[in-house]
Amino acid sequence: MPSLSLRGLEVPPSPIRKLVPYANQAKAQGKRVLHLNIGQPDLPTPSVYWEALQKADIRVLDYTESGGIPAFREAYARFYNEIYHIPLGPQHFLTTTGGSEALLFAFLTLLSPGDEVLIIDPTYANYIGLSYATGIHLRAVESFITEDFALPSPATLEAALTERTRAILLCNPSNPTGKLYSEAEVRAIGSLCQKYNLWLISDESYRDYCYDGQRFFSALELEEGKDFVVVIDTLSKRYSACGARIGALVSWNTDVLQVALKWAQARLAPPTLGQIGGMALLALPPEHYTYVRETFQRRRDVLLEGLRSIPGVTCASSQGAFYLMPELPIEDSDDFAKWMLECFDMHNTTVMVAPGTGFFTQPEKGKRLVRIAYVLEENLLEQAVEILRVGLNIYNREHTAIF
Amino acid sequence: MPSLSLRGLEVPPSPIRKLVPYANQAKAQGKRVLHLNIGQPDLPTPSVYWEALQKADIRVLDYTESGGIPAFREAYARFYNEIYHIPLGPQHFLTTTGGSEALLFAFLTLLSPGDEVLIIDPTYANYIGLSYATGIHLRAVESFITEDFALPSPATLEAALTERTRAILLCNPSNPTGKLYSEAEVRAIGSLCQKYNLWLISDESYRDYCYDGQRFFSALELEEGKDFVVVIDTLSKRYSACGARIGALVSWNTDVLQVALKWAQARLAPPTLGQIGGMALLALPPEHYTYVRETFQRRRDVLLEGLRSIPGVTCASSQGAFYLMPELPIEDSDDFAKWMLECFDMHNTTVMVAPGTGFFTQPEKGKRLVRIAYVLEENLLEQAVEILRVGLNIYNREHTAIF
Repeated sequence: MPSLSLRGLEVPPSPIRKLVPYANQAKAQGKRVLHLNIGQPDLPTPSVYWEALQKADIRVLDYTESGGIPAFREAYARFYNEIYHIPLGPQHFLTTTGGSEALLFAFLTLLSPGDEVLIIDPTYANYIGLSYATGIHLRAVESFITEDFALPSPATLEAALTERTRAILLCNPSNPTGKLYSEAEVRAIGSLCQKYNLWLISDESYRDYCYDGQRFFSALELEEGKDFVVVIDTLSKRYSACGARIGALVSWNTDVLQVALKWAQARLAPPTLGQIGGMALLALPPEHYTYVRETFQRRRDVLLEGLRSIPGVTCASSQGAFYLMPELPIEDSDDFAKWMLECFDMHNTTVMVAPGTGFFTQPEKGKRLVRIAYVLEENLLEQAVEILRVGLNIYNREHTAIF
Repeated sequence: MPSLSLRGLEVPPSPIRKLVPYANQAKAQGKRVLHLNIGQPDLPTPSVYWEALQKADIRVLDYTESGGIPAFREAYARFYNEIYHIPLGPQHFLTTTGGSEALLFAFLTLLSPGDEVLIIDPTYANYIGLSYATGIHLRAVESFITEDFALPSPATLEAALTERTRAILLCNPSNPTGKLYSEAEVRAIGSLCQKYNLWLISDESYRDYCYDGQRFFSALELEEGKDFVVVIDTLSKRYSACGARIGALVSWNTDVLQVALKWAQARLAPPTLGQIGGMALLALPPEHYTYVRETFQRRRDVLLEGLRSIPGVTCASSQGAFYLMPELPIEDSDDFAKWMLECFDMHNTTVMVAPGTGFFTQPEKGKRLVRIAYVLEENLLEQAVEILRVGLNIYNREHTAIF
């Protein structure tokens, strides 16, 4: 056979999804698996979504415009106006097939092969996958669990810039650490971009998940950033609608969106039903967001307290997203995550976590970390903590015995 | 502002969609636009699609597995077994967000930046867009309207191969010409791929649209091609479900699909509802395909006869897909298509066609050609022909008068 591409052979699998075969095997054996590995909220998708589809009464499920149904983009703008108080218009939105595609289009539009993007490690695993697809080089500056994964200082970031650096990619709040960056931190990043003429790609997929009364500061609020800020947005997490595959590339800079539209044309259109249902979601009242935020804040509290009560576990505090990235008393998070699925259960139940290695550009730095998504009810999170506590204990005994 | 990427600036807009603003303007002025520009069948999406969504009664619209719902891939395999008599299994399918994404994954999986792919001109416009996204170079061998867009001879194709050629990409039946390649032609391409160790990427999106009793021969039926054949498939055209955004990468070669799965993981999952409804579509009885084929064959007859009756118009015969690519008595298909929207109507109705320029790697070769999709009922196609007849007449008078 002809050879496969180097990029195809080299791109790492998703750390969030690569253990799926082991989870399926565990389930086939009759085990119950608590899925803490994936960022899929468990709250019901708001019923207005289904009502909108019903009401649409579609005869032909046809393509929409490549940039999205005009009324959908208007709904998006209205949502940004009314809920976020950012006065964008429909012309500032390009509808995409989830946040993933928004990021793909951002890379293709703003960056050439070989260009460098500064990211913060640990980072969202799929940035790595998409960098292989687009020929971009990711240069990571590490944030540390001992510092609650705080943004590295401007001086540290500045020192990491090279001649090829063309953008900073910030995930705020952070997937995988749950770190919420402050207005001051976002402004510092903005200043750096302005000083060095860099794009700021701000992935704000989790912006509705901010706790402890913290206000989210969007990169779109940077007055000086109107030309260089590009935001990745998605309906997935906001509305528990990951399967709709609808997101947006958002920017004040319509030149960016004009070019991105050409990539959008090359894939024809985003899903139609996701846009029709999405219009109804974007019109939900403010109470929706309060309910979601309060629900997840309680879960964070339960999980954080539970994890910290396990001997040998360290967990940074977190004020955003729905992830925690604890350090466990283990040497190999991939092996541990697999072992939990293959070799362990408690009352026939086990836990699936995402190994930390996949969230670092240098995988070995994540060997003691795992990402845990708190996308289950509190009592299940409590159960998951107990399973982890006992699992860690037995895993470490077995591994001490072997070596 | 920082500069945009070269690939973003250089990628051409879609010839099928770039005139959308003019069409919207025409509609805003109260004109009716007959859309012959886009490959969107007008038949109703079969009702089983909506029934399946209704019955699914989904609580959380969640991600599916990156490669698709296992039951969906099983339904796909069953469909290939029962309707096409090709004994593939679920492991031979990777579910994608439409055929476009299947092609993106094929390029990323099989080819490295700078690699060349042999294509036949005129070609499907989005191959050009996707080649920019993936850094692939397309090398075209021209097919000619005077030869009914027949496949160039094996010797001609062979002569176009270079050291960098790594694949042949065939669209069968052809978008945009409607040319159906015979079993002998597919075998000739297969032999060439085998001889030179090339991938054969066969885009079979329109395989259900074959007329005059012709049997479609899939590249998947090449006995020797089990390692090098990769097929692009989609539900879009087969079931009038373009907006579902569901397709598949299909191959006997599971190594290809294993690597492609990593790209699939990097974008998380294809749309959930499209898969749920899609399972029901894939289970439709053979009568569905007969009905669709017969409907479109009648339309082809009407359109072909009508176009050939217009003075100065040449139209190759066609036995597949739902496109014709006539040569018109004009010098600039972009200008003509725009003029039809901006400056012309007949009883307040006009026609939108896709300029031929966008379907050639050397755009100037398409200056006298347009692509017409026969995705309207016969009486509307007859009306469209009359509008084109009168439009061409007036356009040419106006343009002779000016120059």
